[in-house]
Amino acid sequence: MSEENRMQKIISLAKRRGFIYQGSEIYGGLAGTWDYGPLGIALKRNITNLWWKRFVDDRSDMYGVDAAILMNSKVWEASGHVDGFADPLVEDTKTKKRYRADHLLEDEGIDAAGMTPEEMNAAIAENDIQSPDGNPLGEVQQFNMMFKTNIGAVEDSSSVSYLRPETAQGMFVNFKNIIDSFHPKLPFGIAQIGKAFRNEITPRDFLFRTREFEQMEIEYFIHPDEWEKHFDEWQRELREWNAFIGLDEERIIERVIPEGEGAHYALKTIDFEFKYSFGQKELFGLAYRTDYDLKKHHDGSGESLEYFDQQSGDRFIPHVIEPSLGVDRTILALLESVYSEEEVDGDTRTVLKFKPHVAPVMVAVLPLLRKDGLPEKAQEVFEGLRDVFVCQYDETASIGKRYRRQDEIGTPFCITIDHDTLEDDTVTIRDRDSMEQDRVPVKELESYIQERIS
Amino acid sequence: MSEENRMQKIISLAKRRGFIYQGSEIYGGLAGTWDYGPLGIALKRNITNLWWKRFVDDRSDMYGVDAAILMNSKVWEASGHVDGFADPLVEDTKTKKRYRADHLLEDEGIDAAGMTPEEMNAAIAENDIQSPDGNPLGEVQQFNMMFKTNIGAVEDSSSVSYLRPETAQGMFVNFKNIIDSFHPKLPFGIAQIGKAFRNEITPRDFLFRTREFEQMEIEYFIHPDEWEKHFDEWQRELREWNAFIGLDEERIIERVIPEGEGAHYALKTIDFEFKYSFGQKELFGLAYRTDYDLKKHHDGSGESLEYFDQQSGDRFIPHVIEPSLGVDRTILALLESVYSEEEVDGDTRTVLKFKPHVAPVMVAVLPLLRKDGLPEKAQEVFEGLRDVFVCQYDETASIGKRYRRQDEIGTPFCITIDHDTLEDDTVTIRDRDSMEQDRVPVKELESYIQERIS
Repeated sequence: MSEENRMQKIISLAKRRGFIYQGSEIYGGLAGTWDYGPLGIALKRNITNLWWKRFVDDRSDMYGVDAAILMNSKVWEASGHVDGFADPLVEDTKTKKRYRADHLLEDEGIDAAGMTPEEMNAAIAENDIQSPDGNPLGEVQQFNMMFKTNIGAVEDSSSVSYLRPETAQGMFVNFKNIIDSFHPKLPFGIAQIGKAFRNEITPRDFLFRTREFEQMEIEYFIHPDEWEKHFDEWQRELREWNAFIGLDEERIIERVIPEGEGAHYALKTIDFEFKYSFGQKELFGLAYRTDYDLKKHHDGSGESLEYFDQQSGDRFIPHVIEPSLGVDRTILALLESVYSEEEVDGDTRTVLKFKPHVAPVMVAVLPLLRKDGLPEKAQEVFEGLRDVFVCQYDETASIGKRYRRQDEIGTPFCITIDHDTLEDDTVTIRDRDSMEQDRVPVKELESYIQERIS
Repeated sequence: MSEENRMQKIISLAKRRGFIYQGSEIYGGLAGTWDYGPLGIALKRNITNLWWKRFVDDRSDMYGVDAAILMNSKVWEASGHVDGFADPLVEDTKTKKRYRADHLLEDEGIDAAGMTPEEMNAAIAENDIQSPDGNPLGEVQQFNMMFKTNIGAVEDSSSVSYLRPETAQGMFVNFKNIIDSFHPKLPFGIAQIGKAFRNEITPRDFLFRTREFEQMEIEYFIHPDEWEKHFDEWQRELREWNAFIGLDEERIIERVIPEGEGAHYALKTIDFEFKYSFGQKELFGLAYRTDYDLKKHHDGSGESLEYFDQQSGDRFIPHVIEPSLGVDRTILALLESVYSEEEVDGDTRTVLKFKPHVAPVMVAVLPLLRKDGLPEKAQEVFEGLRDVFVCQYDETASIGKRYRRQDEIGTPFCITIDHDTLEDDTVTIRDRDSMEQDRVPVKELESYIQERIS
């Protein structure tokens, strides 16, 4: 199976089985937007709920927030996004279509990371690069990636606002609120899950480069003397998270971003890259951003964002470590990690090998026949389990077909109700991966499953 | 306590204790946006998770989705929002400030619901209504409430998009996808929780009228012959939901919207109104929208949104019942429902009487003294419980003060660790509402709490 073929199969399965649909699909779509279907949102909720429990609820040093997507435009002036959050664009001089200059260069095998527009112009000229339609290209220009809108009844510059291009600023802007309400001691973090938006010129690669996406982000505030210790801790935390949710660790590469390539204020950045079917690309990032962000808002807002250390008597702006995860990229990497095809009795079995605590459906209940009281008994078993696990009930088609269907959506356990069930109150429970079957009394089903998933 | 005073107290407590902050607060705010702090997002997550479990996971007839906020603009043309989703605005002819004409009329005791702009002009003239600054008003004009933005690198009309003003269309547009992936039989529903945006001219009343808000919405598709039965069922479901989360049922009024006042295509609408401190206003709505929405998209997209009934052989566009809840309005109504002040020993005790399954913090663990090994033992108890319940640990200030703090954020159970704990491994557990204390062995704490909250 070629890599391209593999991606197509995943996209096709995601649509067919109700994980991910194209956004606004019946209207021909809207490039760079995707809708989560019933199984996709179940998977996404599992991932985000596990993240929240692990990094917020189970920690005493973390404060969750949920800031508005629309923020005062002064936030983006202070953060540097109004002036600096731009992509280098270049126009096909004939068709007037615009392209990412860095992408055109990268497509020719030229590493454009960290290049200025002038350097890109030079590289385009030097390598005689043309547009995808084979026409000459114009000059590289910076294009701001924030979606702009107007608030209030009058469209003037005072009413301009932006869709946030990252969740991070929502945490920095609430730093003072958290200090005032909770008086936390360093180190402590502020965490958020929420949508962000970027006007990508060429959205591509399924969930990878989209115009609307969801982030799970932490700003972890520290004393600057301790940054290396905390950076290392977060690197470990992220590795453990990857294993916890079942990402294929052999496809994850930690790349230390060389100076000059990353943001100028980040003293250390590690990109966790993933070997997607379409190439090795960023999954998420971990950055030591110094006091850059808080200082910008301290200066920009006129409100003091200093921290007072009662023990030392010092007053200073804390530094920050930022583990920044994309939800959609995580889900894409997860689908790539769990998708597998196996030969079974001459047939191809497609299986999503989700870890049980991540799987959108935990248990399927399947009566062997649609008669003799089996559906009724199956419903009873189903009702007994559904309060504890997300369950599906299915009585259509042959048992073999129903097993394959559940394999394809990654259901870890299939329970079959047969004639023996009516006599001795036991059922067959089938393991998705080994396809082995156990006979288990109905009253022990819950504890059996709990034990298997822990 | 006056009603206005009460609202101010709730807003103040919400900020002080970390429930709700003004959006972009350090930059002077952004009208109509609010940020959820740590306790606010905990409360919101409890509400939305309970809703999802009850209406999606625990039902076999419901399909969850999570559609993109940015949709193809054809969606909003077909739905009627581009032409019709407008508020009547009127300008102060001197200051050029704009106001909602219907609000100015309502402030004078004139019911403007269902009035055309012409009728409002007439009513303004007849009653000699002026602007809040005492100046003459201009003509009433319709102002579209959708936030507009541009997608892609060129700002032309083909690139216009809108922030969705409701989550509903995300479900209608995915109707075909759900049919194709899951082949559900009528009746079935599509459910979604997500953000929506409206360019309100005069945001006001805290979380009530905001520019960015979250919805929990269901489109429940039915055969038209059965609409009354399903409407009644959903009315019951919503009543039970209100009781389930602990809204003050005496403050909820179900108002059947008279013909002409609601949307023209909705054959029956019931508004669940709530007696907020600032007046009786909509909490959420239940509407029978016929086949209006699906029919618009069936015609607008050219894709068939018909349903084929295998039993009868009929092919038709299903009708829909829509229970549409606002998350933020629910939280505001909940804060109003649970906020109470009591006289205790000559002091005022402020208590948020959340139902335990809704409370942002379930258990507080409080060592009586900061010495003699009590903090260590308290930490041990805390660690034993936090995997099951959201817990707080607090060892600062006197025990009386710590109780009051927990009352103020609505923590149902406070556990005190004292010298006896070290001897016999029992703790004192205090009930928030009765303030009565029980002595309970540490090893029975979890089951004790589980029993009390079920």
